Amino acid sequence: MALFFSRAGDNYEHNGLPLIRCQKHPKQRVLRDGDVTIKVLFCGVCHTDLHIIKNEWGNAMYPVVPGHEVVGVVTDVGPGVTKFTAGDTVGVGYFIDSCRTCESCSTGHENYCPNVVLASNGVDRDGVTTTQGGFSDVVVVDQHYVVRIPPSLPLDGAAPLLCAGVTVYSPMVEYGLNVPGKRLGVVGLGGLGHMAVKFGKAFGMAVTVISSSPAKRDEAIERLGADEFLVSRDTEQMKMVLVGVPSKPLELPAFAVCPSGKRVAGNGVGSVGDCQAMLDFAGQHGITADIELVRMDYVNTAIERLERNDVRYRFVVDVAGSLGPAA
Amino acid sequence: MALFFSRAGDNYEHNGLPLIRCQKHPKQRVLRDGDVTIKVLFCGVCHTDLHIIKNEWGNAMYPVVPGHEVVGVVTDVGPGVTKFTAGDTVGVGYFIDSCRTCESCSTGHENYCPNVVLASNGVDRDGVTTTQGGFSDVVVVDQHYVVRIPPSLPLDGAAPLLCAGVTVYSPMVEYGLNVPGKRLGVVGLGGLGHMAVKFGKAFGMAVTVISSSPAKRDEAIERLGADEFLVSRDTEQMKMVLVGVPSKPLELPAFAVCPSGKRVAGNGVGSVGDCQAMLDFAGQHGITADIELVRMDYVNTAIERLERNDVRYRFVVDVAGSLGPAA
Repeated sequence: MALFFSRAGDNYEHNGLPLIRCQKHPKQRVLRDGDVTIKVLFCGVCHTDLHIIKNEWGNAMYPVVPGHEVVGVVTDVGPGVTKFTAGDTVGVGYFIDSCRTCESCSTGHENYCPNVVLASNGVDRDGVTTTQGGFSDVVVVDQHYVVRIPPSLPLDGAAPLLCAGVTVYSPMVEYGLNVPGKRLGVVGLGGLGHMAVKFGKAFGMAVTVISSSPAKRDEAIERLGADEFLVSRDTEQMKMVLVGVPSKPLELPAFAVCPSGKRVAGNGVGSVGDCQAMLDFAGQHGITADIELVRMDYVNTAIERLERNDVRYRFVVDVAGSLGPAA
Repeated sequence: MALFFSRAGDNYEHNGLPLIRCQKHPKQRVLRDGDVTIKVLFCGVCHTDLHIIKNEWGNAMYPVVPGHEVVGVVTDVGPGVTKFTAGDTVGVGYFIDSCRTCESCSTGHENYCPNVVLASNGVDRDGVTTTQGGFSDVVVVDQHYVVRIPPSLPLDGAAPLLCAGVTVYSPMVEYGLNVPGKRLGVVGLGGLGHMAVKFGKAFGMAVTVISSSPAKRDEAIERLGADEFLVSRDTEQMKMVLVGVPSKPLELPAFAVCPSGKRVAGNGVGSVGDCQAMLDFAGQHGITADIELVRMDYVNTAIERLERNDVRYRFVVDVAGSLGPAA
């Protein structure tokens, strides 16, 4: 397929640089054994997209095609695909491949594979191709890294589950927090935080939201169902599983963890298995993200609003609705 | 019993202040239900004693009677004591009581009780009495906080097991590291570090010592049996269970833990059960600390040498041998 940009407005600048590319008919690889072609319907906008667009992690490969919270429909399958058929509603998350042989891959923790292939701004297994994310009308992904969206969920609100959802679900399960009566502290009520509250409550936990915005109290308790709300401007001192990746190091006084035997744990999204389990759980409990659905030509504004935390709680791009039918 | 100091040299100064008290015939409480009177034979000198003597944690209650690595012999038991009889060889570690009702106490993690009573420079359950440690000819401790020393171990080398030993043993067991083939990194080859190497090897782990002193390579590999040795002057960036309590906060970049799902865990010594299990394991495997045995009148020099890391690997005070028979 040829790489082209269908019309003005499909490239978006950030601070004058053509950093974000939204594409129609992307140059995707010819279907290989096990590949699935997915027509993208919706794609969430994650803070990680912003980190990469601004090169805050120093690894941006411009221009970037962002997007790793993809919901779409299977349009074609390559040889050997057994997991999906055309017409299936599926999701693609933060990574689209891994080495499949290391200890992490062998034990179902592909998300911790040292050679994991990220969905966007990653390097594919050939070692040269830069991966292009879900701000695109089509993606091609190996079947093992594709998950199934439960039919009960609205597809736009389900998109953020693919990264924000699994990122908060996975450590709750990993650390055995998903038990009624356990206590969960959620620092920051944003895209991830509001999902953490929803999953925490669905697990039966007592959920405390810790936020720097007193104005979020009603939202947290009345609407999302949190049990308690604390205001803090000192969120870096809060102890919890780290799921966001701030640029500044966390200051960890030994006294905060030693006398009490506490842990600070890092978590990187979740495995493919985690993601499917999370989606099935979300389907049973009717959990989706609270979103603001936008068209592709609004994406630059959305990124700017995201930068100043002006979103409740996740932008989702109506990709198929913005790009129109395939030419 | 009257509080008195038997002779010159039993009080020791630090930087001109009478900070350390070594005492004979201390003022110990009348035996209560469950209390055990212990004649102190040996007491290890831990870096925590130094932290307190120098008031580095801001909580010193001068003058301090240091010492929480006590090995001694039971000389008397109060009413209701079933666990020990006179003549038993026993140990007392970092704490000598706890609330016995909180979640930590109820689940056998007394070391994490918010009201744990430390053996030295602590506040006893009456809320007023300052606890006095093992630099003393006698200590009185509730039987539940006293452990048994296996007969196979030399008593002087066993003393540091009561704090240094259990502090490194406990997290290895807690985090399932005590399995042949698992890999252990030990940052710093001091009192705790050399015990960690010994326990790690006894568990069958592959042990890497990470030290700022290249000169310790031979010691680590040839004598202690470590498998690998790395030199680092940047130990604060090392990722492991935190068992020491440095005054400076650890800088923890989120990238060090999130993409790999790593954890930084705090550990505070170990429970009474951990301590007994550690001693039994040490007895079976012949594990003791490498010590330099000193008399009480050397303790100020020992503290100064400890401050400049001039000890391999633990000073142990020959308390009974220094203080002589009871008057």
